[in-house]
Amino acid sequence: MKLLVVNPNTTASMTAKIAAAARSVASPGTQIEAVNPSMGPVSIEGFYDEALCLPGLLAEVAAGERRGAAAIVVACFDDPGIDAARSIASVPVIGICEAAIRMASLLGHRFTIVTTQPVSLPAMDGLIHRYGMADRGRARAAGVPVLALEDPLSGAVTKVRNQIRAAIAEDRAECILLGCAGMADLARDLTEEMGLPVIDGVAAAVKLAEAVVGLGLRTSKVGGYARPASKPYTGMLAALAP
Amino acid sequence: MKLLVVNPNTTASMTAKIAAAARSVASPGTQIEAVNPSMGPVSIEGFYDEALCLPGLLAEVAAGERRGAAAIVVACFDDPGIDAARSIASVPVIGICEAAIRMASLLGHRFTIVTTQPVSLPAMDGLIHRYGMADRGRARAAGVPVLALEDPLSGAVTKVRNQIRAAIAEDRAECILLGCAGMADLARDLTEEMGLPVIDGVAAAVKLAEAVVGLGLRTSKVGGYARPASKPYTGMLAALAP
Amino acid sequence: MKLLVVNPNTTASMTAKIAAAARSVASPGTQIEAVNPSMGPVSIEGFYDEALCLPGLLAEVAAGERRGAAAIVVACFDDPGIDAARSIASVPVIGICEAAIRMASLLGHRFTIVTTQPVSLPAMDGLIHRYGMADRGRARAAGVPVLALEDPLSGAVTKVRNQIRAAIAEDRAECILLGCAGMADLARDLTEEMGLPVIDGVAAAVKLAEAVVGLGLRTSKVGGYARPASKPYTGMLAALAP
Amino acid sequence: MKLLVVNPNTTASMTAKIAAAARSVASPGTQIEAVNPSMGPVSIEGFYDEALCLPGLLAEVAAGERRGAAAIVVACFDDPGIDAARSIASVPVIGICEAAIRMASLLGHRFTIVTTQPVSLPAMDGLIHRYGMADRGRARAAGVPVLALEDPLSGAVTKVRNQIRAAIAEDRAECILLGCAGMADLARDLTEEMGLPVIDGVAAAVKLAEAVVGLGLRTSKVGGYARPASKPYTGMLAALAP
Amino acid sequence: MKLLVVNPNTTASMTAKIAAAARSVASPGTQIEAVNPSMGPVSIEGFYDEALCLPGLLAEVAAGERRGAAAIVVACFDDPGIDAARSIASVPVIGICEAAIRMASLLGHRFTIVTTQPVSLPAMDGLIHRYGMADRGRARAAGVPVLALEDPLSGAVTKVRNQIRAAIAEDRAECILLGCAGMADLARDLTEEMGLPVIDGVAAAVKLAEAVVGLGLRTSKVGGYARPASKPYTGMLAALAP
Amino acid sequence: MKLLVVNPNTTASMTAKIAAAARSVASPGTQIEAVNPSMGPVSIEGFYDEALCLPGLLAEVAAGERRGAAAIVVACFDDPGIDAARSIASVPVIGICEAAIRMASLLGHRFTIVTTQPVSLPAMDGLIHRYGMADRGRARAAGVPVLALEDPLSGAVTKVRNQIRAAIAEDRAECILLGCAGMADLARDLTEEMGLPVIDGVAAAVKLAEAVVGLGLRTSKVGGYARPASKPYTGMLAALAP
Repeated sequence: MKLLVVNPNTTASMTAKIAAAARSVASPGTQIEAVNPSMGPVSIEGFYDEALCLPGLLAEVAAGERRGAAAIVVACFDDPGIDAARSIASVPVIGICEAAIRMASLLGHRFTIVTTQPVSLPAMDGLIHRYGMADRGRARAAGVPVLALEDPLSGAVTKVRNQIRAAIAEDRAECILLGCAGMADLARDLTEEMGLPVIDGVAAAVKLAEAVVGLGLRTSKVGGYARPASKPYTGMLAALAP
Repeated sequence: MKLLVVNPNTTASMTAKIAAAARSVASPGTQIEAVNPSMGPVSIEGFYDEALCLPGLLAEVAAGERRGAAAIVVACFDDPGIDAARSIASVPVIGICEAAIRMASLLGHRFTIVTTQPVSLPAMDGLIHRYGMADRGRARAAGVPVLALEDPLSGAVTKVRNQIRAAIAEDRAECILLGCAGMADLARDLTEEMGLPVIDGVAAAVKLAEAVVGLGLRTSKVGGYARPASKPYTGMLAALAP
Repeated sequence: MKLLVVNPNTTASMTAKIAAAARSVASPGTQIEAVNPSMGPVSIEGFYDEALCLPGLLAEVAAGERRGAAAIVVACFDDPGIDAARSIASVPVIGICEAAIRMASLLGHRFTIVTTQPVSLPAMDGLIHRYGMADRGRARAAGVPVLALEDPLSGAVTKVRNQIRAAIAEDRAECILLGCAGMADLARDLTEEMGLPVIDGVAAAVKLAEAVVGLGLRTSKVGGYARPASKPYTGMLAALAP
Repeated sequence: MKLLVVNPNTTASMTAKIAAAARSVASPGTQIEAVNPSMGPVSIEGFYDEALCLPGLLAEVAAGERRGAAAIVVACFDDPGIDAARSIASVPVIGICEAAIRMASLLGHRFTIVTTQPVSLPAMDGLIHRYGMADRGRARAAGVPVLALEDPLSGAVTKVRNQIRAAIAEDRAECILLGCAGMADLARDLTEEMGLPVIDGVAAAVKLAEAVVGLGLRTSKVGGYARPASKPYTGMLAALAP
Repeated sequence: MKLLVVNPNTTASMTAKIAAAARSVASPGTQIEAVNPSMGPVSIEGFYDEALCLPGLLAEVAAGERRGAAAIVVACFDDPGIDAARSIASVPVIGICEAAIRMASLLGHRFTIVTTQPVSLPAMDGLIHRYGMADRGRARAAGVPVLALEDPLSGAVTKVRNQIRAAIAEDRAECILLGCAGMADLARDLTEEMGLPVIDGVAAAVKLAEAVVGLGLRTSKVGGYARPASKPYTGMLAALAP
Repeated sequence: MKLLVVNPNTTASMTAKIAAAARSVASPGTQIEAVNPSMGPVSIEGFYDEALCLPGLLAEVAAGERRGAAAIVVACFDDPGIDAARSIASVPVIGICEAAIRMASLLGHRFTIVTTQPVSLPAMDGLIHRYGMADRGRARAAGVPVLALEDPLSGAVTKVRNQIRAAIAEDRAECILLGCAGMADLARDLTEEMGLPVIDGVAAAVKLAEAVVGLGLRTSKVGGYARPASKPYTGMLAALAP
């Protein structure tokens, strides 16, 4: 089975890190194809970047399904474009925030998402609410830019670690969710160090994608995820028309 | 004061209808500028169209603010891109679904949104939930394509009328919300005919925009709507970089 | 258009301040009539005062509609008697707490109400819950009596300012709501000083009232706001019988 | 122990029926004093009547406590003035809607309130929501005026019975709540006839009042129910000043 | 009337304390029978103990009903087995957590449960949520083992007192709930000392049980609490088959 | 990896069916061990059976972990004992209801659980609520005893099919969940026949268990799932003491 992992920003080094995280947990029979769009923002921090990553992301989703992907992971913790991707694809589409939250619900009661920038906190709040976990989860920001995670000298990981400690002490967190695909390489060590599950959404989504595919299930097409009607799109997005 | 009304689809006849609805309620001192993007879907029906209208919509929002708009209305009942538009603009940005829901909350208890296609119902459910009205509102679909509303012979209005009657009888609706900008011309007559408030989101948003501007208030920039950091965007979206 | 603003307490100096706040934002064509009842409490602090302001408030609402008011604002942040006023009037009736909350929802995610006395906090909690914003808003008390706001030497404004700063730092508030009609004169300066929207409910309600009237909408009479059946009222309230 | 039961409308025959219902369940040591105000509406149907019953109701509450009542029951299913009564009194104050809902929660999962008039349904919805039972309860209206319950020839009881049957069949109700103090005499027979708990709020509140008094507990005075500060009330309500 | 109070752990000294608390509030006509199972955990701290107390608890419930109990109280603040006990019994079954929460809702707005061990906090959260009070209540742990409450030299009561003070100061609690049947002897003194209602669930449940019995109401048998169908149980639990 | 699947009732034919369903989706490296307790109810229908299956279930969970299970599935749609099992085990424990609901959330918006008996509906409601999906899911009963699913001549499958059709037509369901482990063999055919995802919880839980194990995650032991303190258990449950 081929699993497409789309990093919706355009930074190839982050795609590589995501690919490594995905491959580190993939089952023997799973082939990971990690891509990023050629158009759009170099990192996703806040609602505007999130909106503008969509054309590139959705083009990769459609292309990936055409190339035979059995499932698709959207590897940004804002879960951008998940609804649209589920509409255009027939195979399962999984966002890394939802994946991490679903895993956390199996392992503990309260959880805390540690994300990068404060600007992302309302988006995190919105996702926690949307996924029905407002009474169990909350979000904190480490105050680090996304791309600082690519730089070992930035001190970013220390800031993440500090927020995890605060979540355990102050939020009664039983699980920690790493709120950025750029933190995918930290989960295993932090789980060990902190003594509770620290969940990376990329890995969680890969395993969840394998699970859904293994069940033979596909996105429901009888309601809101019905394939979009064919219609003209104009201008430079014409090629993306359904 | 200049008010920008963006129809996020690319159908000019619908923009004209929206402009007329906006002008019919605008205060004497308000100048309505109604535009639509040149790129994107000809109508917005479901999550995929909603995602792909965003680049065109956000470009119009940014351009409108540069041209001096005092507030911006997004004239699609899915409230596409509201969060992103509020991030990129400093002036207030108002979606027609939120506007209609806020007006309804002042005039009655329960409300029903009558939208076009069943594919849009989960999006409507999501907005009702997001706006905190899950215990007061629900949505129904008339089963008409958006562009059928442009055709007086399509029978679309009769189907809308039937759903309004069902909402009164079965949902205990005290207000009706017309769930598509393409229904903007129907509100006044249906209010009269049905004997309860029938609210058009375009008109509601225009008046709400005037209200916010009149208060001298602008979008908060201290949290999730902070202006996006300057960063490179690549490919054909480079021109949209913040 | 004539807009009736009812201060439901009997303190004329506060009515004058409310009138000034209302007039400072009213559109050219709007005539503000500000009144207060001759019977009832001199200030509204807690549930008991709130209940006992109702006969005077509702008499003013009914008289105001008879005198031709196009809409009515109830200028106490507890939104006392809103449901009853909407029943007895046909024109729109708007409470200043709901107005402020609806405006805040357009400008930011989380908000904090800064009210006067701790005794009012459960009422604020109740309104936030009723208006569907329990996941986005909370309330704080400055610990000042309502009428201290009328006295520039009381230090009341400093206490309000301190709570605003705490809300920004601790609640992640993106908007502040001034939780008492007696703070109506502070909003514009505090917005400037604090760098985020500080919303006065009186002004918000005036603009929202103009908006609803401009839409040609009136209170729904098909459900809970149906005009009360004519029936005898006995004793000293007989004159208030519907 | 003396228990004050206040019928907040001014219809003495209904007070007598309420008194009988209260006495039918009171413990041997409980003395029931049933009163109604001399001022206010003859029946409470909708928000306006509910607001205007408050001065009479609160005067009776205060007088009752002065006369030595150990607890006070407010015998109208809208729970009018409960918060205000709890502020002015130190003894426990119990509304019949809350009492009935709390009893129902001990005996089954879902419940349906069968009230008199459709105009009261939004008030019932509001109470169900306020008491935290929105996922377990709903309300139906029998379509009978309150005072028709006083007239055996009105057919009112048949209409109540029909709604109970519908609630069992369609709402999966496990308990029925009689949504008007004027139905207090029906509960015992309907429990027998319908084969599930049919709860009268008057009786429920009397027993709950005995329970709270038996625990030696009184209304909390540290927050929203703190005794109102002494202050002038003007006009014909001056005598009600705290 | 005979009231069965089941302490679901096997510690007889705690049963004696519970019996004393129950008798201290029982009405003259109420005979308290306090029992504990002979099988199961010596104290209930966390989910595992809670599950394993059930066979013993349910055997006592069934035996108690056969011996003529008019109602049954389950005297552990986790409300273990309440749903099962309501299924197997026809008489009312009342858990002490639900009883305390229902009493608190009559006396104040916010409440805090002070329980023994942190391991019980998620169970408390779950019960607060289940009973519809997530917006009004929270839980704190004093950090004392259940059986330390039996030892006056353990310092346990001081730790409970400290958490009560913190709840008043930090949670805006208006009522305190003692979150363990082993604290039943502390309520009356702490109410006096702390100046707000401090509620013991055992006493609350006894009075609530008397109230329900006094209404002539029994558990609804039309839905989820229908008596279990007769069927074989195997192994050492065969004697518990319905 | 060895995966323990516990059927918490004592009917071996149902265990065999569950084992087959589990094996049909297990990955090549996964060894399924399916067991049922020797003590307890022959089927689980309602809260009483659910409570009395716990000693047998928890004994199997503990024994399974000792024998080296990498994860444990509890194969009853009531998710009995999940919290207790997560406390006693260190490996992940997954209930089939939660598993099915988490899968459904990835594939569609609204879902309907089709369970066996009406007596189980409140339990289903409770789980939907607990898992945060009250706005997206509901439950229906086919009106068939659990063990009728073992008998091809019982007509049970037709009744299940009818409820699925009703859910699609009336609930706007986008996914169907088979609400009993005894329906595990029906999912694949019904998915095909009904044209939307029909999810069996046993299969879903097996794949989810593989996913969690593949991530190297275990149950959090820092809060409510901390391993129970060692303490005496008395009577015939002594052997189950932690």
